[in-house]
Amino acid sequence: MATIKDVAKEAGVSVATVSRVLNNSPKASKSSMEAVHAAMKLLGYRPNATARALVSKSSNTLGVLVSDVSDPFFGAMVKSVDDVAHQDGKHILVGNGYHDPDEERRVIELLINSRCDALVLHSKGLSDEELIAYAKEVKGLVLINRTIPEIAERCISLDNYRGAYLATEYLIKQGHRKIACIASNHKIEDADERIRGYRDALKDNNIELPASYIEYCEPNSDGGEQAMTTLLSKSLDMTAVVAYNDYIAAGALSITQENSISVPDQLSIIGFDDGLIARYVYPRLTTIRYPISMMAEKAAQLALALSQADSEHEDSIRYTPTLVRRDSVAQLRD
Amino acid sequence: MATIKDVAKEAGVSVATVSRVLNNSPKASKSSMEAVHAAMKLLGYRPNATARALVSKSSNTLGVLVSDVSDPFFGAMVKSVDDVAHQDGKHILVGNGYHDPDEERRVIELLINSRCDALVLHSKGLSDEELIAYAKEVKGLVLINRTIPEIAERCISLDNYRGAYLATEYLIKQGHRKIACIASNHKIEDADERIRGYRDALKDNNIELPASYIEYCEPNSDGGEQAMTTLLSKSLDMTAVVAYNDYIAAGALSITQENSISVPDQLSIIGFDDGLIARYVYPRLTTIRYPISMMAEKAAQLALALSQADSEHEDSIRYTPTLVRRDSVAQLRD
Repeated sequence: MATIKDVAKEAGVSVATVSRVLNNSPKASKSSMEAVHAAMKLLGYRPNATARALVSKSSNTLGVLVSDVSDPFFGAMVKSVDDVAHQDGKHILVGNGYHDPDEERRVIELLINSRCDALVLHSKGLSDEELIAYAKEVKGLVLINRTIPEIAERCISLDNYRGAYLATEYLIKQGHRKIACIASNHKIEDADERIRGYRDALKDNNIELPASYIEYCEPNSDGGEQAMTTLLSKSLDMTAVVAYNDYIAAGALSITQENSISVPDQLSIIGFDDGLIARYVYPRLTTIRYPISMMAEKAAQLALALSQADSEHEDSIRYTPTLVRRDSVAQLRD
Repeated sequence: MATIKDVAKEAGVSVATVSRVLNNSPKASKSSMEAVHAAMKLLGYRPNATARALVSKSSNTLGVLVSDVSDPFFGAMVKSVDDVAHQDGKHILVGNGYHDPDEERRVIELLINSRCDALVLHSKGLSDEELIAYAKEVKGLVLINRTIPEIAERCISLDNYRGAYLATEYLIKQGHRKIACIASNHKIEDADERIRGYRDALKDNNIELPASYIEYCEPNSDGGEQAMTTLLSKSLDMTAVVAYNDYIAAGALSITQENSISVPDQLSIIGFDDGLIARYVYPRLTTIRYPISMMAEKAAQLALALSQADSEHEDSIRYTPTLVRRDSVAQLRD
């Protein structure tokens, strides 16, 4: 493979001149540009992006850390970031962190060391301190779905508490009082906030329920199936279920079908996310909308803006979840 | 920010020595390693992966081109590639090509120029010629879901014809003869092969149907809704539908629900992919399994093997689709 030195020799110019031509430097003369391009063509030389990134201190790449890109929630997030990057002539580098501190650190190090212009991170494994240190190092770093007070202006988050409160309150307004909750057993802020929203909505409506009304599981449909089975086994008097996310709700729905419990006539179920499957399950899922595409778009725009200029010191950006009414919740009949 | 030169000066060694230490070269002496590491720590120097990639001619990254990572089909593909990459201590770089030749070329150029060790490409936009040229340039390049005879040993594909034949034949075995088809309007090989499989299965069973039994649409649920509506409007005598993929089938299902047509009692529907939603729709979808995770794993392993050694000249690897029986197909009652 031809090197930059071969091109310089062929064109009769210095390596520095070839480098200037490759980087479209205004210092490159027209004649040297022509000579270099002719030599590149003759030798089949491919400008090496790694070498060019080294010169320009930028890889023209926006780095994205997600938990698992095969989860459609993160797929939607990555898609929005890619759309914004494309508009700016950039491409994205995506890594999976799986909510694990070591994996997340490895991906972030790779992204930083690859000189990404900007970073959009969905980190749940790393401590606030570690993320603050990274934010100091990389001015185009933005966190999504997390709030850290010290770097609040770089955080795009959702009011998870409000979402779970809204879901529970909606069921109460439909006449339900015996409302079970299927929560996530992941040790992340979202899980705590959503449980708190559920509990506070009950409390504010003078509803007291034993702890047995809450089940914890993996936040996927298998988890939802197991948790729903456990709730049914406990012979609770429940008329409605608040699920941590749409997958858990979908798992719960399949168990109700198998047990000939009609949703929403005998049991109401509400999800969270309004992801891909919410419209496909039967009955179509009433859920809480997590505006992840909108949030990811904002995060990508902010990351690119911060990477190109000094911080604009906006306030932290907190999105509000909304209720999406479909067919899995019904008014309680006496 | 400290540079490699600053580190060399502080450590009292040459830049070449620092480079050797950074790259764990066996030529680096123990004393110089200690001096360089001490200097790096003192100066807060971050080894620049771009610079290291330049020295080692490798970015330790596996590049992946997909159409759109937010589609769970490609999410599953990327996940499998990432699993294999992780086992090899590598990370992945993912780009969306959206089946568009210009977008695909841009992503591939970025991946090649970033010195990816290996490439797994899902390309539908570029010509055979262009992909062959790339394959000559990058020895660790593997194509997935495409076969090009000249580079057959680098192609991992599915027998799409067989899948559609299998789906149609299964319906025929259940007594159906008036079988409509909702095909993809994308101009890709998969679409042609699946239509051919449907037609040949009918022909081999002496079934002749007018052209009106085939509808073309975008391969998503909106497309499926439109196509199903059109099929119903045409007052066809159909008792079953072969859908291009699960999303089209899901869209068709929602139209049958709205029109009080019971699936599978009045109409049988079969999908293709066995993707995420097949288990969530109601009734659960009988479909053709596309073993994309298995294929992507194989593609990643092959790409890494080819990138590290000379080609092993295997035959092309063609996977076979299988039938997954669920609840959306019933035997035709007379």
